[in-house]
Amino acid sequence: MDEQKKKGLILVNTGNGKGKTTAALGMALRAWGQGMKILVIQFIKGGWKYGELKAAEKLGANFEMRQMGGGFIKGKDDQSLDEHRHAALEALDAARAEISSEKYDMIILDEILYAIHYGLVALDDVLALLDKKPGSLHLVMTGRNASPEIIERADLVTEMREIKHPFTQGIPAQKGIEY
Amino acid sequence: MDEQKKKGLILVNTGNGKGKTTAALGMALRAWGQGMKILVIQFIKGGWKYGELKAAEKLGANFEMRQMGGGFIKGKDDQSLDEHRHAALEALDAARAEISSEKYDMIILDEILYAIHYGLVALDDVLALLDKKPGSLHLVMTGRNASPEIIERADLVTEMREIKHPFTQGIPAQKGIEY
Repeated sequence: MDEQKKKGLILVNTGNGKGKTTAALGMALRAWGQGMKILVIQFIKGGWKYGELKAAEKLGANFEMRQMGGGFIKGKDDQSLDEHRHAALEALDAARAEISSEKYDMIILDEILYAIHYGLVALDDVLALLDKKPGSLHLVMTGRNASPEIIERADLVTEMREIKHPFTQGIPAQKGIEY
Repeated sequence: MDEQKKKGLILVNTGNGKGKTTAALGMALRAWGQGMKILVIQFIKGGWKYGELKAAEKLGANFEMRQMGGGFIKGKDDQSLDEHRHAALEALDAARAEISSEKYDMIILDEILYAIHYGLVALDDVLALLDKKPGSLHLVMTGRNASPEIIERADLVTEMREIKHPFTQGIPAQKGIEY
């Protein structure tokens, strides 16, 4: 293997467990440590908690974060879904523009797989985005239910499986862990 | 659930996939964003790559990292294992002292499960450590092959499963991802 060969990867964190966004955040921190420029686009607003937002802010100019999209889907009435779709499409437009801009070394599309799964963005539009990814850009996608076509195009796919969760044991959300 | 109830959790990232240490790093960043004080003790020296080390350094005084332990075990001759054991026991002593010190809000024992699995530290000694954890401390343990006794005592356990890995496709290690 040629260690010098530079290739931007497509990375996917999926599964029903904790750690998909958290591991993406860890990847971002590692890349940031290397002096790289990172952009996070959140497809689910509110998915990042106070601790992460504060940390992103403290990391400065090389760590940029855009909270776009709607929240997690609660109701499923048409009007609420339309609003979610509209917000998700704006996030996808932003992703498309910034992926082509070549301004970033790593772009994280947080919860984009959730947006695909709920039909907020079309799988084909996301696949088209992947096909246009500049060669050196690392593109990270997170969310449950990664579709086979996404996995097919990804270089690294990890499934986070929940083995045990504190909520199921009646332990409330903790500062620094859940938020 | 009482959102105000503070309880330090025992968190475990295990499995054969990527993202165990990376998600711990993300958790540390989130807690750091909350103004918490973090200590990472590495049971496998060299397990953290340049990007993570640089990032830890840049995060300043509230993010402390100690590279202890030996490297990943290559040979299995008695002398080399003795050296690994000695280094791992020193790391465990440090963990014991700092867990009791109550100076930190989160302590990450990175790759300690690897050290247990290879018999470098005794499972019983680690379990005794967990029993003495101060109530408010978040304790994170990473590594493959978490033993049932560890899972039993943990509040949150996530298995990182490898679905697809770039090395198996002949793609060399990439800056900002692997190092």
